[in-house]
Amino acid sequence: MVLRYKMALPCRSNVKSLFQFILKTNLPKRFLCAGGNVNVKDPPGGRVFSGIQPTGVPHLGNYLGALESWVSLQDVYGSVLYSIVDLHAITQPQDPTLLRQNVLDMAASLLACGIDPERSILFQQSQVAEHAELSWILGCLTSMPRLRHLPQWKMKSKQKNEGSVGLYTYPVLQAADILLYKSSHVPVGEDQVQHLELAQDLARVFNHHYGEFFPEPRALLSSTRKVKSLRDPSSKMSKSDPQKHATISLTDSPDDIVLKIRRAVTDFTSEVTYDPDTRPGVSNLVAVHSAVSGLTVEEVVRQARGIDTARYKQLVAEAVVQRLEPIRLEIQRLKDNRDHLEKVLAHGAQKARELASPVLKEVRQRVGFD
Amino acid sequence: MVLRYKMALPCRSNVKSLFQFILKTNLPKRFLCAGGNVNVKDPPGGRVFSGIQPTGVPHLGNYLGALESWVSLQDVYGSVLYSIVDLHAITQPQDPTLLRQNVLDMAASLLACGIDPERSILFQQSQVAEHAELSWILGCLTSMPRLRHLPQWKMKSKQKNEGSVGLYTYPVLQAADILLYKSSHVPVGEDQVQHLELAQDLARVFNHHYGEFFPEPRALLSSTRKVKSLRDPSSKMSKSDPQKHATISLTDSPDDIVLKIRRAVTDFTSEVTYDPDTRPGVSNLVAVHSAVSGLTVEEVVRQARGIDTARYKQLVAEAVVQRLEPIRLEIQRLKDNRDHLEKVLAHGAQKARELASPVLKEVRQRVGFD
Repeated sequence: MVLRYKMALPCRSNVKSLFQFILKTNLPKRFLCAGGNVNVKDPPGGRVFSGIQPTGVPHLGNYLGALESWVSLQDVYGSVLYSIVDLHAITQPQDPTLLRQNVLDMAASLLACGIDPERSILFQQSQVAEHAELSWILGCLTSMPRLRHLPQWKMKSKQKNEGSVGLYTYPVLQAADILLYKSSHVPVGEDQVQHLELAQDLARVFNHHYGEFFPEPRALLSSTRKVKSLRDPSSKMSKSDPQKHATISLTDSPDDIVLKIRRAVTDFTSEVTYDPDTRPGVSNLVAVHSAVSGLTVEEVVRQARGIDTARYKQLVAEAVVQRLEPIRLEIQRLKDNRDHLEKVLAHGAQKARELASPVLKEVRQRVGFD
Repeated sequence: MVLRYKMALPCRSNVKSLFQFILKTNLPKRFLCAGGNVNVKDPPGGRVFSGIQPTGVPHLGNYLGALESWVSLQDVYGSVLYSIVDLHAITQPQDPTLLRQNVLDMAASLLACGIDPERSILFQQSQVAEHAELSWILGCLTSMPRLRHLPQWKMKSKQKNEGSVGLYTYPVLQAADILLYKSSHVPVGEDQVQHLELAQDLARVFNHHYGEFFPEPRALLSSTRKVKSLRDPSSKMSKSDPQKHATISLTDSPDDIVLKIRRAVTDFTSEVTYDPDTRPGVSNLVAVHSAVSGLTVEEVVRQARGIDTARYKQLVAEAVVQRLEPIRLEIQRLKDNRDHLEKVLAHGAQKARELASPVLKEVRQRVGFD
């Protein structure tokens, strides 16, 4: 799994439609709950926090499902933090050398996708000690059974029939990530809604025990746009897919992209239509085409009238290449400049610490440590 | 509960007998395991770490069972750290104002008992961020079932039929406390042996994954000296005992001490003998008398020949008062000098950080964060 905090807002959404989307998709109860508590003074307009695991270069599904929206959110909110969450990554075994490289590759990819370090705080989670500190404090306010049924634990511990303490307490650290910056808005995928609810609960519990302090963060719920595997359109596109041509990486060459899309599983009907239930393969291509071109699904289908799926695949491949090529080149350029990446992350960590430090200081005083 | 990390070495033990004690009481397996791994270069002679919860002023049982030995260990080891573990304290609900006061009272008490900030690093756990950071990393190396049967969780969660994540993961933080300083020796009570075994296991697991780094800390097992409640000699002396005269605080006035010992439960035999099984009440007094006077149990019983328990209680009370009076006065003096206490703790935290920082830095590099 690549993303633990996901979102997917409509591509090329303008500010107005983004706000409508937010209002529409917030869970009513949570929305109402959060309404009175969000500290609008700090910062004005709210603060967005999200995190992504350092899995190296993301794939097309990550990009269209989350990263593109992260870029858009920079235009909407005055304060935006994106964290490469390596403390979360080690809840599964990691090779240290690879982890280090993956953090840099993820940083390069986020920058190449349009995360602007002048408008967003882009940082590596483990460089800000306050995350672990707040996580301990919040863990003391979390009952053990509260975590037992959360998706993270249920999925991952079952896969291997075991799990670490880190995996079990993962959502508490997520809550700390969010609350540490008094974040007001958190882009999440549907599978992360329960984790955000824990963060909301912990904000309430802390406020109840120690006086009003944390805003209850609101969900920016993702759309249902999920890019599917090119080899098996019943499952999501995933970096860990063992099938070679199932996943398009942001650094795939144009030839690779053309090849993978040419080999994409469709069906025996040559016409191009959009019906994810009965024709998942071709519909996935239509959805990708729509997302990368900025056209609606209807426009895409209309354009494809009269051509067969084999020819259509070429069109889709061209559109994907056109969209990803500048990103791929920028990732390459940035990857060759390790110093620059490290400088960006160091600067981000510095800015994150400046926000986190006074919040934790206040928490510590309220808890009675200082 | 006052102490989570306890020890009780024989009072007035000199260096030689202390070493013999250590060799005798170490679990053979652990001792052998640790033998090859303890990094004797760092620091020479080994490093002692122990922690005590900030419960305010300790009682006589704490003093004779653990603190007196802490004082002795300063003569034996070149590097000694004693931490007031407030991060552990919040695994149970705490009043912030009281917690703050209790940290200072505990610091005053430890100093008054003879902890010398020139020879020991005395510090407040929450002031060193590295504890929480290392705890997160070690939690990712700990399986969930590993903690399920540890005494901390079994006892405390059952009492209230629930428990927090902090309470469950308490032993992982303990392991972090110990390993963060590459401690070689840890004074523990019998009830904490399993927790130390977790720290030893985590040292091994870390070393296995990331290369030899942590020494396996050895137990300095407590003697069986446990001061009993004066009102019910079948249970330990405890600060939370609801019975008013059950527990002698280090700040009790001489009159209070005399009264409490006069009211101590004994039996219907007037002779003074030592037999904890059949005569727990009077034997508890003999044990206390022996401990505070530095005489052996046999000597104490011989001295009491021919006097009845009522008269003997006066002797015991006098000996306890004589022993505690300078400590009581020193605690009062120190409590009146809050600035001094805060300075001592700040200095201790500074020195602890100086030791912890390079260790965590190395851990972070090995894990792949830096």
